[in-house]
Amino acid sequence: MISDRMAKLLERSAPMSNMYTEGARMKALYGVENVYDYGLGNPNLPAPDIVRETSVRILNETDPWYLHHYMPNNGFIEAREKIAASLNRRFGESYGIDNIIFCTGAAGGINCLLKVLMDPGQEVLTFAPYFGEYDRYADNVGCTLVAVPANAPTFQPDAKEMAKYITEKTRSVLLNNPNNPTGVVYSAQTIREICDVLAEKEKEYGHAIYLISDEPYRELVYDGAEVPWIPDFYKNTIVAYSFSKSLSLPGDRVGYLAFANDVEDFDNIVYGVAVAARIMGFINAPSLQQLVVAECCEETVDISFYDRNRERLYAALTEYGYEVAKPQGAFYMFVKTPTADDKLFAEKAKEYRLIVTPGSGFGCSGYVRLSYCVKYETVEGSLPAFQALMEDFTKK
Amino acid sequence: MISDRMAKLLERSAPMSNMYTEGARMKALYGVENVYDYGLGNPNLPAPDIVRETSVRILNETDPWYLHHYMPNNGFIEAREKIAASLNRRFGESYGIDNIIFCTGAAGGINCLLKVLMDPGQEVLTFAPYFGEYDRYADNVGCTLVAVPANAPTFQPDAKEMAKYITEKTRSVLLNNPNNPTGVVYSAQTIREICDVLAEKEKEYGHAIYLISDEPYRELVYDGAEVPWIPDFYKNTIVAYSFSKSLSLPGDRVGYLAFANDVEDFDNIVYGVAVAARIMGFINAPSLQQLVVAECCEETVDISFYDRNRERLYAALTEYGYEVAKPQGAFYMFVKTPTADDKLFAEKAKEYRLIVTPGSGFGCSGYVRLSYCVKYETVEGSLPAFQALMEDFTKK
Repeated sequence: MISDRMAKLLERSAPMSNMYTEGARMKALYGVENVYDYGLGNPNLPAPDIVRETSVRILNETDPWYLHHYMPNNGFIEAREKIAASLNRRFGESYGIDNIIFCTGAAGGINCLLKVLMDPGQEVLTFAPYFGEYDRYADNVGCTLVAVPANAPTFQPDAKEMAKYITEKTRSVLLNNPNNPTGVVYSAQTIREICDVLAEKEKEYGHAIYLISDEPYRELVYDGAEVPWIPDFYKNTIVAYSFSKSLSLPGDRVGYLAFANDVEDFDNIVYGVAVAARIMGFINAPSLQQLVVAECCEETVDISFYDRNRERLYAALTEYGYEVAKPQGAFYMFVKTPTADDKLFAEKAKEYRLIVTPGSGFGCSGYVRLSYCVKYETVEGSLPAFQALMEDFTKK
Repeated sequence: MISDRMAKLLERSAPMSNMYTEGARMKALYGVENVYDYGLGNPNLPAPDIVRETSVRILNETDPWYLHHYMPNNGFIEAREKIAASLNRRFGESYGIDNIIFCTGAAGGINCLLKVLMDPGQEVLTFAPYFGEYDRYADNVGCTLVAVPANAPTFQPDAKEMAKYITEKTRSVLLNNPNNPTGVVYSAQTIREICDVLAEKEKEYGHAIYLISDEPYRELVYDGAEVPWIPDFYKNTIVAYSFSKSLSLPGDRVGYLAFANDVEDFDNIVYGVAVAARIMGFINAPSLQQLVVAECCEETVDISFYDRNRERLYAALTEYGYEVAKPQGAFYMFVKTPTADDKLFAEKAKEYRLIVTPGSGFGCSGYVRLSYCVKYETVEGSLPAFQALMEDFTKK
């Protein structure tokens, strides 16, 4: 008696759910410490102490009516001011409160934004491999996600290739940098080329193509990598940010959308997103969390912890013969499987108590994603398993 | 460049937005204390102290990783256990964790639920006058909201009348008790009659019709009124609850869905809602708030405060010649306007610095809604204005 539409969505999400169930089963069977679970992107670092301190202070010092009341749907004014000031300082912007809308994580913000930008039957463009939920986000508003095929082995999107996938129906582009699932940071050159093509296509079709830059991993970069600030390259940019990873607050559901000053139809879009948040049932990002992250927006978790996992895992996997584009951001590694069938590889991996996610869920088969936001001991413990698994496939 | 669909939605929400803008303009002009703003349902009582105390304790005592991590999409297990135990104690249920899904307020939960229950082109039934956003909730999933006309002057829905509005396409019913905008509490008899008709219609059409009981005002009742517990009357019931009003936490976005044990296709629906929360971008209700309300779920704000406003306002308005069904719940009063044109009345009211909401926004013209979650001084101050306004219309 669930809707036909939802039944299909559940079918599609079944492999992911089975993976979690299987992971839980294996942990019960072998013990948590004997299962190497690289499945989920659930940060394993605790939020920095400043989050607790700030939360307690705000709870103790703020009039409880004010703290918990319905603020404007786009968020507390003073919190939006602080976010704008931080972006102005960091990226040389001149944003005010109207440029910022608090949302329930980047996911909530993107869904509200698509509701405002997209009519049914239109197309959202993205680059494979991509965060698998993008398919559903486009589907939620009756649209299709069109993915530009992966550009292995660097996974830097190819702007010329992208041009072939843009049609009159393309009204928005979802770009995820640093990227989930590859951990690759799209370079300034990549971004410039993409934006140049988009600007040409805007002229060609005579309407805006909005670039939604999904940046929950902006702060998680290594080797001094720089994440280009997209509003510097493209007028119609909206940045979707989340504090889920930078502050390890995924359960808190708080992030923001930042609208570049020259976004076409700025007023209607910004107002539309606030209305969308209301009518879709979000209403606003949680109030306490808005005030907390506004004060902590330039803090981050200790990224050296993820970096240590990254270095160890990358060195070992390449030594065992795996092909990997060395990630410079996020906490993911996208590993080419020694068989074209990534699902088979992921199944086989379970025999070695390894849990990995098939790349086909990210629109790119022949790879698996490892989420290395795990304990260092898990990384160390998993290495013989990865080695044996490779031998298993190569001896065949 | 916003979507056509959104442009229409913005047009529809313009009167409401204009009202807020106008309210702000008037307050700037006359001073906050000289404008009698009955427009918004924004609780003016602060959250009870126990909310702050519990929040601070949980922040100080809980492992920060655990407190902020991605728990299952349906919420922390121990928090769902506490909610289930409370419902079991209060209503004689035998719920476990699977019956409870935390959601971002009742609004978030209802939107996830409709995504699971409804296919495009189907119908959601409700009773006028109804919370105006229901229209948009149905529209979000490509469905139509069908409203059974208001049954004035009691505003108790008429089950026989309802029967005429049920078709093969009716797959869910949204029932809001105590009701926004009337403040009327639907009686056990009303509920029994509605549920009997729904059960007959389920047989007639050979499929389930799910009753979604939207109960954010359950705890806000006066004169010893009892709000019937719908699962006692109907198998296919899902209760949508919010802590926005009982604990004055509207900005926190936390509530739950409670699924009756015998709900048809229980497993798929419950699992479907968790998946819907994920793919729609909610992911989960904010984590700290889940743990806090689970401990405070039987606390409420001091309801005598609203009751005082209610008694004063009702006595005065009826004395001035207004027709009002005395509300027994929530903090709304639905007042018949001395002209059939409720928008004209609301416009005229502004001349007396009164802000009220036209009933036509709730599918019931000829009335205005007063939200009396305001200071008692506002009520007192507003009375001469209401009297003069009535005289203004009756002398014509």
